[in-house]
Amino acid sequence: MARVFNFSAGPAALPETVLKQAQAELLDFHGSGMSILEMSHRSVTYQRVIDHAEESLRSLMDISDEYAVLFFQGGATLQFAGVPMNLMYSGRAGYYISGHFAQAAWREASKYGEAVVLGSSEKSSFDHIPALGEGLDPVFSPVTWCAPDIDQSLDYAYICENNTIFGTEWHELPNTGAVPLVSDVSSCFLAKPVQMERYGLLYAGAQKNAGPAGVTMVIVRRDLISDGPALDYCPSYLDYGTQDAKGSMLNTPNTFGIYLCGLVFDWIAEQGGLAAMEKRNRSKASLIYGALDDSSLFRGTARPDSRSMMNATFTTGDAALDAEFVVEAEKHGLVGLKGHRLVGGMRASLYNAVPYEAVEELASFMQSFEADHSSACCSDRRSL
Amino acid sequence: MARVFNFSAGPAALPETVLKQAQAELLDFHGSGMSILEMSHRSVTYQRVIDHAEESLRSLMDISDEYAVLFFQGGATLQFAGVPMNLMYSGRAGYYISGHFAQAAWREASKYGEAVVLGSSEKSSFDHIPALGEGLDPVFSPVTWCAPDIDQSLDYAYICENNTIFGTEWHELPNTGAVPLVSDVSSCFLAKPVQMERYGLLYAGAQKNAGPAGVTMVIVRRDLISDGPALDYCPSYLDYGTQDAKGSMLNTPNTFGIYLCGLVFDWIAEQGGLAAMEKRNRSKASLIYGALDDSSLFRGTARPDSRSMMNATFTTGDAALDAEFVVEAEKHGLVGLKGHRLVGGMRASLYNAVPYEAVEELASFMQSFEADHSSACCSDRRSL
Repeated sequence: MARVFNFSAGPAALPETVLKQAQAELLDFHGSGMSILEMSHRSVTYQRVIDHAEESLRSLMDISDEYAVLFFQGGATLQFAGVPMNLMYSGRAGYYISGHFAQAAWREASKYGEAVVLGSSEKSSFDHIPALGEGLDPVFSPVTWCAPDIDQSLDYAYICENNTIFGTEWHELPNTGAVPLVSDVSSCFLAKPVQMERYGLLYAGAQKNAGPAGVTMVIVRRDLISDGPALDYCPSYLDYGTQDAKGSMLNTPNTFGIYLCGLVFDWIAEQGGLAAMEKRNRSKASLIYGALDDSSLFRGTARPDSRSMMNATFTTGDAALDAEFVVEAEKHGLVGLKGHRLVGGMRASLYNAVPYEAVEELASFMQSFEADHSSACCSDRRSL
Repeated sequence: MARVFNFSAGPAALPETVLKQAQAELLDFHGSGMSILEMSHRSVTYQRVIDHAEESLRSLMDISDEYAVLFFQGGATLQFAGVPMNLMYSGRAGYYISGHFAQAAWREASKYGEAVVLGSSEKSSFDHIPALGEGLDPVFSPVTWCAPDIDQSLDYAYICENNTIFGTEWHELPNTGAVPLVSDVSSCFLAKPVQMERYGLLYAGAQKNAGPAGVTMVIVRRDLISDGPALDYCPSYLDYGTQDAKGSMLNTPNTFGIYLCGLVFDWIAEQGGLAAMEKRNRSKASLIYGALDDSSLFRGTARPDSRSMMNATFTTGDAALDAEFVVEAEKHGLVGLKGHRLVGGMRASLYNAVPYEAVEELASFMQSFEADHSSACCSDRRSL
């Protein structure tokens, strides 16, 4: 079958050239007579693969040696525990609750110490990025602590920078002063240039913008992990300092996944790097949000000031019609558009590997769907 | 380049037919118009993939519903923490120290409770499987507790069933009475039929006998995990009960890795299942150990009664000659034979996907190497 346009939230579209290269060399990696899948992680050849992936990522994001670049397994969910276990030295950290995964990270952190809510947009169904102090009441936390400024004694302040499910994004990072900012960037990783110096730690599951499921990158300021993990019972596997000393190979890493991430990093560099990615991503987002704003059938579910460049969530307001749209779109080769069950409706994920043409195709399909349904829609409305 | 004979200890040889199938369908999985690498783990198509992998594994190993079959990431090393965090309800478990990874698991467990050493063969460089009570002194544990029988109040008794580095294997499982036996079977997984009812839990990194690096199977008696994890601070990701309830998809799993494991499971079934694997593995092991016993240049490093069917460790006794052997073997297309640094010498891993012809080739090469070096060797010895 011809390749479809894949709008999945993750695992998600990968660059076709990367897939073709992986396919071509799958049985014989660089003349080694074996697959990369069969190769010892301790071999000289594989060491080059992981070193190259790290260097390529450092180059893309302009990451200095002040930061460790670590390749983990277990997804963001494992890092929900890894972050507090490594960084909660004094036992208290702050969390902005901007969506499902931020909330899950906060709940997990609460196992390991005091996880203070800094702001939450849950009351408005996470349709925007919360302000400091917003929405705090005992529902969110046994500790209702908040303050006009971030308490400088916190071990870190945590955000989920792009909320995949709700289609919102932090357009300005919060000012945390000297408190290290920890950011889950899973669904906006490598989508635009970043100011690394603003972060104490950022991490990302690969399966959205960087590669296949099964690899998580943790990029962390080395001074934050030089004393060993904050908590004695942190599993050795999750000990950032140990993994840094071992070059992410305390044990066998996801060798194939890291290889594929390296190919994606190279592809991004060939496309012009993160600035070029941002330009293209902004075009795609403008196109889809423009289509939503122009539509009288569809509307975006995120507040315009919080709209994500990566995940556009929208609905007709009619669950049956939404379902019909998803089914019809799939027949037109536009797949993965069903929204998350927590929001309903539709979601178009516009990651780096989703081409502009895919979004054009989607916008055009939305128009024709609207044309086909506007009379029905209007007569329905009249009959109400 | 033609495919080499790959004797790597892991990641290791995979069946060529599996690699070819993965290659053929890498850009379009079953007519979906996308790669399996790009497919949502929540899609109907992927659900079939993971369900099939689980069913195929259950069928191969004859695993009843009394056991959960879980797919994790993070390797055996993460399970070194996962096992005690889930099962150490009373805070005390027993460990047999039969090699490097058993020792690492014991050290990790000591973070979470009292990890009692049941027996250790460290004093003889782990060249055999230890007996109960063997080798216990304060070097091994702050607790030197031992007893003629296994204390029935232990939460579990732990073994590493095949010691990849030292080339030894438990040929008879220890009698643990009612204490659940926990076994790290990473390097003997699927090599022969198992009596599941003997185990409370077994787990295996895939990258030896089951697939690529990045997948770990945990097979655990459901009654052991029905009360939630033993320790409150167990990361949600590592909570066996939660992962069982979520079908190993609390979060995005290593989708590609599990798919590939499923193909390997199917391949094993097509070959005749675990009984056929055992027959072939025994032939390969007999061939290599026979060659070692017949040799006056090479000798096995494991005690004959503890020899592993999967990893044959051997040496000439001369580090320079060992190094020469490894280099020369590689020129003959026999790769991955360098022993682990803790043992030195050579190691031939004879996993399921290593064909009998590879071992014939190796045995034949050992003979010719011996013929070429026997005069030099003897003259060297005379000159001493």
